[in-house]
Amino acid sequence: MDHITALQDIVGAKFTVTGSDADKWRQDWTGDYVVNPSVVVRPASTDEVAQVMRYAHAHDLPVVPVSGHTGLTGATANDGAVMLSVDRLNQIEQIDVEGRTVTVGSGVVLQSIHDAVEAHDLIFPLTFGARGAAMIGGALSTNAGGSNVVRYGNTRDLCLGIEVILADGRVMNLMSALHKDNSGYNLKHLVIGAEGTLGIITKAVLKLFTKPKAYATAMVATPSIADALTLLHRIQDETGGAVEAFELMTRSYIDLHLRQTPDGKEPFAEPFETNIMVEVGATSAEDAMVQESGQTRLSEKLEATLGTLLEEGAMLDAVVAQNESQRAEMWARREAAGHIGYLDGPRVDTDIAVPLDQVELVIAGIGEKIRKIDPGAWEVVVAHLGDGNIHHAIYPKDTGPEMFDSFVEAVEDTVQEVGGSFSAEHGVGLSKLKTMTRRKDPVALAAMQAVKKALDPKGILNPGKVIPPV
Amino acid sequence: MDHITALQDIVGAKFTVTGSDADKWRQDWTGDYVVNPSVVVRPASTDEVAQVMRYAHAHDLPVVPVSGHTGLTGATANDGAVMLSVDRLNQIEQIDVEGRTVTVGSGVVLQSIHDAVEAHDLIFPLTFGARGAAMIGGALSTNAGGSNVVRYGNTRDLCLGIEVILADGRVMNLMSALHKDNSGYNLKHLVIGAEGTLGIITKAVLKLFTKPKAYATAMVATPSIADALTLLHRIQDETGGAVEAFELMTRSYIDLHLRQTPDGKEPFAEPFETNIMVEVGATSAEDAMVQESGQTRLSEKLEATLGTLLEEGAMLDAVVAQNESQRAEMWARREAAGHIGYLDGPRVDTDIAVPLDQVELVIAGIGEKIRKIDPGAWEVVVAHLGDGNIHHAIYPKDTGPEMFDSFVEAVEDTVQEVGGSFSAEHGVGLSKLKTMTRRKDPVALAAMQAVKKALDPKGILNPGKVIPPV
Repeated sequence: MDHITALQDIVGAKFTVTGSDADKWRQDWTGDYVVNPSVVVRPASTDEVAQVMRYAHAHDLPVVPVSGHTGLTGATANDGAVMLSVDRLNQIEQIDVEGRTVTVGSGVVLQSIHDAVEAHDLIFPLTFGARGAAMIGGALSTNAGGSNVVRYGNTRDLCLGIEVILADGRVMNLMSALHKDNSGYNLKHLVIGAEGTLGIITKAVLKLFTKPKAYATAMVATPSIADALTLLHRIQDETGGAVEAFELMTRSYIDLHLRQTPDGKEPFAEPFETNIMVEVGATSAEDAMVQESGQTRLSEKLEATLGTLLEEGAMLDAVVAQNESQRAEMWARREAAGHIGYLDGPRVDTDIAVPLDQVELVIAGIGEKIRKIDPGAWEVVVAHLGDGNIHHAIYPKDTGPEMFDSFVEAVEDTVQEVGGSFSAEHGVGLSKLKTMTRRKDPVALAAMQAVKKALDPKGILNPGKVIPPV
Repeated sequence: MDHITALQDIVGAKFTVTGSDADKWRQDWTGDYVVNPSVVVRPASTDEVAQVMRYAHAHDLPVVPVSGHTGLTGATANDGAVMLSVDRLNQIEQIDVEGRTVTVGSGVVLQSIHDAVEAHDLIFPLTFGARGAAMIGGALSTNAGGSNVVRYGNTRDLCLGIEVILADGRVMNLMSALHKDNSGYNLKHLVIGAEGTLGIITKAVLKLFTKPKAYATAMVATPSIADALTLLHRIQDETGGAVEAFELMTRSYIDLHLRQTPDGKEPFAEPFETNIMVEVGATSAEDAMVQESGQTRLSEKLEATLGTLLEEGAMLDAVVAQNESQRAEMWARREAAGHIGYLDGPRVDTDIAVPLDQVELVIAGIGEKIRKIDPGAWEVVVAHLGDGNIHHAIYPKDTGPEMFDSFVEAVEDTVQEVGGSFSAEHGVGLSKLKTMTRRKDPVALAAMQAVKKALDPKGILNPGKVIPPV
């Protein structure tokens, strides 16, 4: 019996996809990677995933898990593998309002989780541009970050428990809704961020939070990034840590956005170099109260802080969103980053994290190195400034693909000098294998290889990803 | 050359301790475990730890790491092993005030970290009764919890990076001060909580937080634990999540405390069953402002909330600390739990976590089961109610040690029924090996064994702890 037939017997013929029917799974919209599975299987349950893995393990078939397929690092790339899509594990099983948790299948779309819990005045704070397509399984497997990390942490910080199918099809039950659980090694954190190379996540218990009772959102122009950090610390101090998002858009990004977005607008009357989008959320009843001014106390606090900075010369201009549509416009500008960058031709993408007080120097340092390689090259910089995560894109002018890796090295060198990370929130996939080899602690790499071999001795789970070949 | 001499050559004769000089390392103050090392080595640097492990690995010597020796689960128990004390790795290497991090050796005493950062108006929030002796290495290795988890999380949530010596002496550098870092498997979280069975932590980068500008602390008596949870949610809502500690002391605990503490006082004029210690911390400048009443806004908010609950009949009595010494007295009562329990003769200790809304039922359910085994047995219950972590002690009356495990099973059964954990914050050590075998997911156990074998193939690191024998 051939493999296709065997897989059909497990998940059903309708959900064993081949040929042109599988085309939607072949699209890598970054355009950088080959995704050409021999077959796409779409199991509908934990047991079906387990059966598929037992079969694949018995027959040494490589299996590449996929959820929303919105990754940027080639983590689902393959040529001839069995692609296991979790898209049918799309049940929101339980929302525990009192306990502030939601239990979901790994194929649930991020936006669907947002919508489902919002009805209970709760939020699942993980959010990024692709939330309408990205599924929680992929977010967990890459330990996605996004725009609210400054307040709520990364995906792993928002996950209390998971169910995992190991390479040989055994079901590992790490489901838990507890905030304290020290029963042996923390395998949950090992599987989260492993990009499907150690196991396939089928379910998760996620943390929920009370929905802020009010938001205040503003665009702020500052003379420098240092001034922006002053603004951040000042607002945190005044509001008791209410900053939900603190995003940097440099001039280069605003220009790109205007060029690529027909209805895009300048954030201010005149163009500025350092543009910040800040959002604060009121968690206390008091801060949400509307004052005589017609604004909430939180909004008044934000404006007061902005006023002080203006007097101090640490701020150039500010626009506070007066309604939900103005707020939405501010977010749309920032979240366009996910796709508009790709419209401007070949680019070298990086996803780096550095200490907050190093962001300004690092951006400058990278620029210098880049211009030495290609004086005409230009850069687009956008950052989750609140957590030091910079997305730095380089568009070469006088150099070809043969120089791409030199650009990457230039970025890495600068980042390493300040103890930063070459991989902040997008994961490693295939795109950062070379970097892992040259930048990651070799003992840590060897330990990862040992762990991989221990949990997937045949190496059938998402082969070739995350860990460079020995 | 014998082993002692070889170890002396590495760490020096003075710091290679044998015979009666090693007595202080032989004391297991729980009295439940044998700690009888053949030799205690006290390396002074990462390199010396690495050399010791290289030697031990070459000669198949079991090595048991120890720091403050305040554990409750026998995680440092051994008979004839090389005990590796990190107490000389006691440097506070760097406090980064701007970046809110501190870099420490694993032998630094928790209290010393508190004192060092307090000078900069910062806090390292991890705290528990043994902080004056416990060292950060042990806290990381057990992923200690403590009294501030409700606001700041467990030890792993407070650690950004670690340096680890593997079983064969290789130095694994996972030091990082970043809030986003997805460069391969998260080995940091794997080693944290592994109780020294996967590697020896020599350094750590810890998160710091702005010191609350004011505290408000109170003892509150409520008719039931359910009412106490209403109080918790109400205060969180009013203050925007400012609760730093929310501790339950049942009547049984207050009685034990009065019996064991000469200067111990009743918290209220009359005795109550459900006694809560709540502390809120002002992170916003506004909440810390002193009002006309002479109290801070935060303190006024707390009293207002308490007033509302009194009217609703959800509160019986309350005492708000009027000064630092009254606050200290409230904390002393709660933190005595670590030692007074041991003064009352043989007991069965458990460290469980359950969903908050199950705490009341679980305590009742355990009581019923216990009385069936030993009608005269009495229980002492104290809990970190804010995170669902119950410390439940059983003092048998008409039964002997042969029944101890039946008591433990009675507790475990009740906990399992509500999806709780049999191990919340003290770790597994030797004390919970049986429980791991009968309660932990067998696939997870097998995965832990595989990981252990991969990273410590000779099984020389803290042998026999955490993972039950196959």
